[in-house]
Amino acid sequence: MKLNILFSPIVADELYFTGKTTVVIDVLRASSTIVTALKNDAKEIVPVATIEFAVKVSGGMFGGQTLLGGERNTKKIEGFALGNSPLEYEEKIVSGKSIVFYTTNGTKALVKAKFSENLLVCSFLNLSIVAKHLVSLNNNVEIICAGRNNFFSLEDTVCAGKLAAEIISLEPEVELNDSVAAALALNEKYGNDLLAMLKQSDHGKLLAENGFEEDINYCSQLNVVNVIPYYFNGVIKTMKPE
Amino acid sequence: MKLNILFSPIVADELYFTGKTTVVIDVLRASSTIVTALKNDAKEIVPVATIEFAVKVSGGMFGGQTLLGGERNTKKIEGFALGNSPLEYEEKIVSGKSIVFYTTNGTKALVKAKFSENLLVCSFLNLSIVAKHLVSLNNNVEIICAGRNNFFSLEDTVCAGKLAAEIISLEPEVELNDSVAAALALNEKYGNDLLAMLKQSDHGKLLAENGFEEDINYCSQLNVVNVIPYYFNGVIKTMKPE
Repeated sequence: MKLNILFSPIVADELYFTGKTTVVIDVLRASSTIVTALKNDAKEIVPVATIEFAVKVSGGMFGGQTLLGGERNTKKIEGFALGNSPLEYEEKIVSGKSIVFYTTNGTKALVKAKFSENLLVCSFLNLSIVAKHLVSLNNNVEIICAGRNNFFSLEDTVCAGKLAAEIISLEPEVELNDSVAAALALNEKYGNDLLAMLKQSDHGKLLAENGFEEDINYCSQLNVVNVIPYYFNGVIKTMKPE
Repeated sequence: MKLNILFSPIVADELYFTGKTTVVIDVLRASSTIVTALKNDAKEIVPVATIEFAVKVSGGMFGGQTLLGGERNTKKIEGFALGNSPLEYEEKIVSGKSIVFYTTNGTKALVKAKFSENLLVCSFLNLSIVAKHLVSLNNNVEIICAGRNNFFSLEDTVCAGKLAAEIISLEPEVELNDSVAAALALNEKYGNDLLAMLKQSDHGKLLAENGFEEDINYCSQLNVVNVIPYYFNGVIKTMKPE
């Protein structure tokens, strides 16, 4: 089993992922929001790569039971029902709904990896259960850090390092490379106080400036949700672990 | 003064660099080779982004005093006088010559950043003198890690972290971001034994397999060459520090 971590979705093209097992991480906040929406019984998340496409697909193909969610530059998009704060995705709002979801980084990374054979979503909230499932698949794993506008983000990398460490603890024969060595080292340095790390990160600072401190607290929680979001045929649903 | 590190040249486009101060790092081996060639009195290095262009420009526009150098996948290119081993660039071979230079990662990164106002080349060999010069410029600095085929490379990142640490030691008011925090942490973990780090890196292992152990030893030396390679109008020459 080999692990590889991409620190930006732009470093590979769509076909790179064909047939692979891929995990997308966007701690602040898309992957934390997807995990939360599914925990709160959303029927499915439909990740889209453009706002135009979000508006188009929300028009009826999901039978009226859709909500538009997401953000551009941390802010809710005009006309959308929901932003990208996981705390908005309460059960009474999302239960049973299809959520068409656009975000600046996370959903683009998901759409880019759409040809993967297995495509999962990971955050700190559901890290251990994703690690266990990945080990059970016994494939090579590509971890994509959604980053910020193609640039590096610390929180996604620390999460990737923690996921890698958990996989290695379950399957010590994993082959490492430069990217995994780096992410493991960053998890060693920053992974023991996730809240402090998120607060000092570029994206954490921006969210705090825009009034989303509660999201940072929420997203810093480790292994509090037993949900594996699984992308198949254009939608993300909850997978029951084996 | 702000620092930013790009872990792959692909995360930004050519125009991103317009007017900026940029440093390109490709420890194994393009930037180490450029530094060495200039130390050994090469007149200039002409970095090119394709082999076809290397062959085309070497035909006469530099008056017959040209050498073709470089590699594809670590190996010397058929018909080229020199590979990408810094040890080949001896004074008796390169003195006074224009070297048209193509490599898989490093020269592509240089060509990508060609619109920079200041464009320098850094390796472990010449790290301190580059740091001093950058501080004297008093601009924001973009550091590009050449990486490997758009992917992350540990040795370029550790070198970027060491360069950042040196800049910060000279100019403590530097504004950091996620990318710099990560590179500093990796320099803390791996930067005290550069030879061991290079040997365990993906690229170091590949070079060793292909018989280039001596290059790894050579490139692991810190601050042994007082040369600032400076790109201007398509060629890299030695700059005299102020």
